Parts: sequence; C-alpha cells; structure tokens
Amino acid sequence: MSRVAWDSHLSDVAKNLRPSPIRELLKLTKKPGMISFAGGNPDPAIFPVAEFSEATRILSERGREVLQYGPTEGFEPLKQFLSRWMAPRMGRATAPEEMLITSGSQQGMDLLCSVLVNPGDSILVEDPTYPGALHTMRNRGARFVTVPCDAEGMRVDLLPGILDRAAAEGHRVKFVYAIVNFQNPSGATLSAPRRKALLELAKERDLILFEDDPYGHLRYDGVSDPTIFSQDDEGRVVYACSFSKILAPGSRVAWMVGDPELIRRMVMMKQGNDLCTSVVAQALVYEYCNLGHLEGFLPKILKHYSVKRDGMAEAFRKHLPAEAEYHIPAGGFFFWMRLPGVDTKELFLKAVDRGVAFVTGPSFFANGGGEDCLRLCFSFAQPEELEEGAVRLAEAIRDLKS
Amino acid sequence: MSRVAWDSHLSDVAKNLRPSPIRELLKLTKKPGMISFAGGNPDPAIFPVAEFSEATRILSERGREVLQYGPTEGFEPLKQFLSRWMAPRMGRATAPEEMLITSGSQQGMDLLCSVLVNPGDSILVEDPTYPGALHTMRNRGARFVTVPCDAEGMRVDLLPGILDRAAAEGHRVKFVYAIVNFQNPSGATLSAPRRKALLELAKERDLILFEDDPYGHLRYDGVSDPTIFSQDDEGRVVYACSFSKILAPGSRVAWMVGDPELIRRMVMMKQGNDLCTSVVAQALVYEYCNLGHLEGFLPKILKHYSVKRDGMAEAFRKHLPAEAEYHIPAGGFFFWMRLPGVDTKELFLKAVDRGVAFVTGPSFFANGGGEDCLRLCFSFAQPEELEEGAVRLAEAIRDLKS
Repeated sequence: MSRVAWDSHLSDVAKNLRPSPIRELLKLTKKPGMISFAGGNPDPAIFPVAEFSEATRILSERGREVLQYGPTEGFEPLKQFLSRWMAPRMGRATAPEEMLITSGSQQGMDLLCSVLVNPGDSILVEDPTYPGALHTMRNRGARFVTVPCDAEGMRVDLLPGILDRAAAEGHRVKFVYAIVNFQNPSGATLSAPRRKALLELAKERDLILFEDDPYGHLRYDGVSDPTIFSQDDEGRVVYACSFSKILAPGSRVAWMVGDPELIRRMVMMKQGNDLCTSVVAQALVYEYCNLGHLEGFLPKILKHYSVKRDGMAEAFRKHLPAEAEYHIPAGGFFFWMRLPGVDTKELFLKAVDRGVAFVTGPSFFANGGGEDCLRLCFSFAQPEELEEGAVRLAEAIRDLKS
Repeated sequence: MSRVAWDSHLSDVAKNLRPSPIRELLKLTKKPGMISFAGGNPDPAIFPVAEFSEATRILSERGREVLQYGPTEGFEPLKQFLSRWMAPRMGRATAPEEMLITSGSQQGMDLLCSVLVNPGDSILVEDPTYPGALHTMRNRGARFVTVPCDAEGMRVDLLPGILDRAAAEGHRVKFVYAIVNFQNPSGATLSAPRRKALLELAKERDLILFEDDPYGHLRYDGVSDPTIFSQDDEGRVVYACSFSKILAPGSRVAWMVGDPELIRRMVMMKQGNDLCTSVVAQALVYEYCNLGHLEGFLPKILKHYSVKRDGMAEAFRKHLPAEAEYHIPAGGFFFWMRLPGVDTKELFLKAVDRGVAFVTGPSFFANGGGEDCLRLCFSFAQPEELEEGAVRLAEAIRDLKS
C-alpha cells in the first residue's frame, strides 16, 4: 500500500505553508502552574454566559428563518443594529450595501486580500503587527512592505519615502493595513494628526486603507479619536470590527464597512468561501444586542480589563529592571516591551522554566526584526497572577544575564 | 469628491467575478403566488426547531469554553461524535487528524482548492454539476475539464480519453470532483462498479478524488453503495458531508475527512480564513446530536421528502408531455429533465409568467451546454404545490410551442 506523495499535488501556497510560530511556542506553555501572558484571548471568567443564553430564545421564535440559508451579506436585523450602534464611530449610519457580516475579522481580511491582491503583490503593514494578519496575507501570496511604529502608532511621516523605495524595488502595494486602536502587539493608538495625514497620503497616492479596529471599544482612559473611515469621502477606507473582544470570539461574528463597489465583490467572493456566516451565530449575537446586553456588558469589561491593565503596570514597575522599555496602553489587551540586548527567544525558554509565558517579538515582524521585543497580554491571566508573573519574568531576565 | 476607481485596484479574480446567474434568475421568482422548484433549500416546515432549541443548554453548561476561540480543527466532542456516527459509511472510525470541521461544505471545497490548485490549474467536474462548486473553483482561478454523466453518474469509462486529451491541451488536472449520491442537479448516484473503476483509475494516474456527499443520508429507496473513501487505502479520496441537508443549513457546520497530510494543510489555510468555525454553532449541533435528535430526525425527513419526491413524480407523469426525459431520483432534492428542442431559458420566462420557477440547464455546465435541460427541486415546495406546479410547467411548454 503506497500513500499519496502530496508534494507533487500541492499548490504553491500550500507548499510554502509554515505552522504558526506562535502556536508552536504556545504548546510549551500548557504546563500546570504556568502563568500565561502569551495568547491574546479574552477572559472567559467574564463571558456573559447567562445573557447570551437568554438570546437563544430567537431560535424558538424565528427558528425557520434562522436555521435556513441566509443572505451572504449577513443577517439583516444584525446589520441594522450595527449600522445604528456604530453610527457615532462611523460618522453616520452606514447603508446596508456598505456592510458585510463576516466569520470573524479574520475572514474579512482574507476576503479583502482575495479581491485586491494577486500572488506577488504587496501589502504595507506596521512593524510590528498582528501575526494572524500576516498568515492570512501570506496564504493569499502577498509580500510585505513595512513601516515602523512608535507610541503614536504608524510613522506616517516615513511612508512617502518607504512607498517610493518599495515601488523602485518592484513592489505593487495593494493596501495599507493599520490596527488603529491599542494595536496588537504594540498597544499604541494611531494619533489623530497621523490619521488625517495617512488619509491625505492615501488620496494623493491612490492607496486603499484597511482600518482594523477589534480593540476600539476597549478604551480604559481618555477619549476615542475619530475613525479614519469617518473622515473619508472617497470610499478608500475599509473598516473592520468584531464581536470577538466585546462579546465572544466563539461566535465568529464580525463586520466590515466599505465602499459598496468593494463590498459587492467581497460578497461574491464570500459566496464561494462559505455561502454565508452561520445564521445561528448571527441571530444569537443580534438578539443579545437587541436585549440590551451589549450596552450592559461593555462597562463591565472595561472595568475588568482596566483593573488587570493597572495590575500588570504596577507589577512591572515594582519588579522589572529599569532597562525594560514599555508604555502603559490606554486600552486593548497588550503591553509591548523592549529589553535592549536581550534575545527574547532565549528569554522565553528561561521564562517558561520559571513558569511564565509571553510571545517573542519576531512573530510580529513581517520581514524580520524584533529580537529584543516581547508581547505581554494582561486580558487572560487572573488578577492574582499578574504580580507573580512579573516576579517570574524578572527572575528569568536575571537568569539570562547570570 | 472623486470616488475610488476600483478597476485599477482589483485582483485578477475580482476583475472576472460574475454575479451568479442562478441568483439573478431567483430574483424573478420572488413574486407572490410563485411555485418554486428553483432554489435547492431544505423545507423550513420540518426544521427541528424545538429540538435544536433544547440543545442550547450547552451554552449555559459549557459557556466559557463555547464562547472562547476554539481549535481550528473543530470542536472536539463534535469530531468524536462524527467519527463514531459516520464509521459505517467511512468503513472505519476515522482518526481526529483525518477530520476538519468546516463552515459548510462550501468552505471545505474552497480550502481544498486553496491547497491543491494554482490559478490556471484545472479541475475535472461532472457535466452537469453544482454551480456553487464552480463558483468557488473559479474564485480560486481554476479552469475546467468536464465528463458527461448518465443515470449511473459520471461516465468513468470516458475518463481516460478525456484526461489524455486534456493533458495534450495543457490542462493540469488537480482533482476530480464527484457528487456521488443523488447528484445536484442530475439526481443520479454513481454506481458501485463505477466507484470502483474511478478509484482504480485514480490510483493508476495518481489523481486526487473529492467525494462530495451532502445528500448521502437522504436515500428514499434501496440501499447505499459503499463510499469511495471506504475503499481507498492510499489517502487519495477526500470526503465531505454536511449538516445543511440533514439538520439546518443556517448552522453552517460541515466536515471533511481525508489524508492527515492534506487535512493538516487545510487546517493551516483555515487558520488564515476564519481561525475556526463558529464554536457556538458547532456546540449547538453537537449537543443536538448528543441528545439523540439527529437519529430521531432522519426518519422524519426521509418520509417528508420521499412523499414530496413521489408527489412530483406523479404530477410529472400526469401532466408533462411525453417528450420530457427524466429519471425518478432515489434520494436527494432534485429532478433533472431534458426537453429536446426546447430552449429552457425561453421556457423559464414563460414559466415565471405562469407562476412556476426552476433553474435553467446552462448554470450547471462548466464549459457550456445544457440549453435544453432544467433542474426541478421538490424539497422546498409544499405538497399541494407539486401538482399545480407541474400543470403550470406543462402550460409553459405549450405556450412556447404555440
């Protein structure tokens, strides 16, 4: 009995697939007693289980509709709710043909790549950025051009030069990918002047902007800057948001808003991808919102996560060596840290020995870099673990230097 | 204010996207009083709404798990259930690493294309076949080689010649797509000797087979032939099945079974596509099965749909002209009909005037053809509509000839 020799059958993309380095690292962190600052998951301890269960009444009330195939564009009542609820952030109530419900923002990203990117085309991404985005983009055959970030997000002032050099090197940049609020992993928020400058540059150079905003609702201090979408009158900004961080990632319900011409093509691609997002999941999420539970839940998670954020900040202040460079994020899930002269891959092994885990920097850099950086997530660990985790991390840093 | 000129931004696939012709036709059928034999939807009148609602108890019982991100491979209890439940059809209890839960079979098809097909590669499809599959395959840049079908399914005897000619014409055939039971649209089932011959040919020529089986459980007469998967000892058959027809398409839960090497790569592609299928939807489907409702529901739908099948057969026998050529399907949702000398696109317009709808033949042919064919679905129309629909169809045929 001979098995299929797959190498001769695979597509080019499949031949180049690599298991996610983060997944490999996370396997090492499954030991008992491990304090995990690694995975960027919400805290299941505050999932609104009772309220979400209450929403299941829509299955008995509208079962024949909810159990049937739904429109590819999304469950209409959910779209209407989102248009109203998001109007303050979007600058207006967006029209139905501007919105597409997706199976998580991850699918939105994949659909956007599928309608814009040919294999070999490039995407301009932040350095560092969300590795899941890089994975999706690589699966669509994309190459990358990177732009550095600082405490105010993407260095928009460097973009003209970067774009010129990229064009000279043969890159065809199809869109700019920016996580605008409490970025994963840097925690930084793109400042209002930079949002304006980025949109101006996009107009000048005929660029498409993908404004990814999964953390926008998780602001613990200060006030939100206007979305880039709300300032765009040319249809060149595509905006994505999700229920993963503000309700439950297991629902896999997110949405994209953009120019109707673009959305229409994403809908046609989605017909081929999965016909429609689970109507059951969409209907439960809709009913949960409709019952007022989303508005009730948001203040709770803001308090819950801001306490954790403060706990991690205080623990780092108390226990980490002075050379650790980081900012305290005003929202989201992440601290981003630089430890000059430290190889965080080596640190990771010491840290896991000590019983604390994080994600090493290079995972977040599309074209390499970040060896002395690490991401520390405060959303998932329990409050009492924050200080102990910082103590262990400090010990691991000392281990490495001794 | 100038809008984005999208044509200069789109990918090659997006530039060539065409709205589904079926969707366009279906819009014409939304008139009041229309009897629809068009869309291939299950009958919402028998959705197990109460039983599915009962399954929502898993949300209260395991909410913290079900609302969190899940493994890309699928919700483990559902995979275990399916391995046991499908063992008689699969020939054995398949291993966890052989199975991937997908967001509908449609996603499984897309993932399979993504790991096997480069743009410009070809897929060997049945003539006629499911238009949704053609749409997914086109979105991945595939071309098509076609093989005719008869009452016993794919003409496997013609395949060697077809493959030789295709190779000579520069086609690189990456897999063979067969809907093995009660095919959409032909209603035909691939006979046992042809299944064997197809697998033999696949071994001889090192072909990959995609055995798509959404209707396999909907057999009204006779006994099932062994799956091709169960006869394969080389890992070259990928098998897909779905809850869409046996429970509820709105769940968007399906599964694929195949060689672990292939499944592993599909999992990595799916990580980029949507991270995982809605855990909420998977958990509800699992609990519904776990409560024994799937086994309870299957006899009900078999009876429900076989009565409709018989009703349509009797109505066609009584009212349609003798030149109408069709077989009575032993399962599934569809009658496939040939009306020699009739252009079914013209017939469609007459039929819609008379108040009955169907899908015209050419939608089902990858490279053209089928002008005198039509698909008539009996699952969705109500029992009392079957005879009246046949009367109207007969009138439309007369209208066309007068």
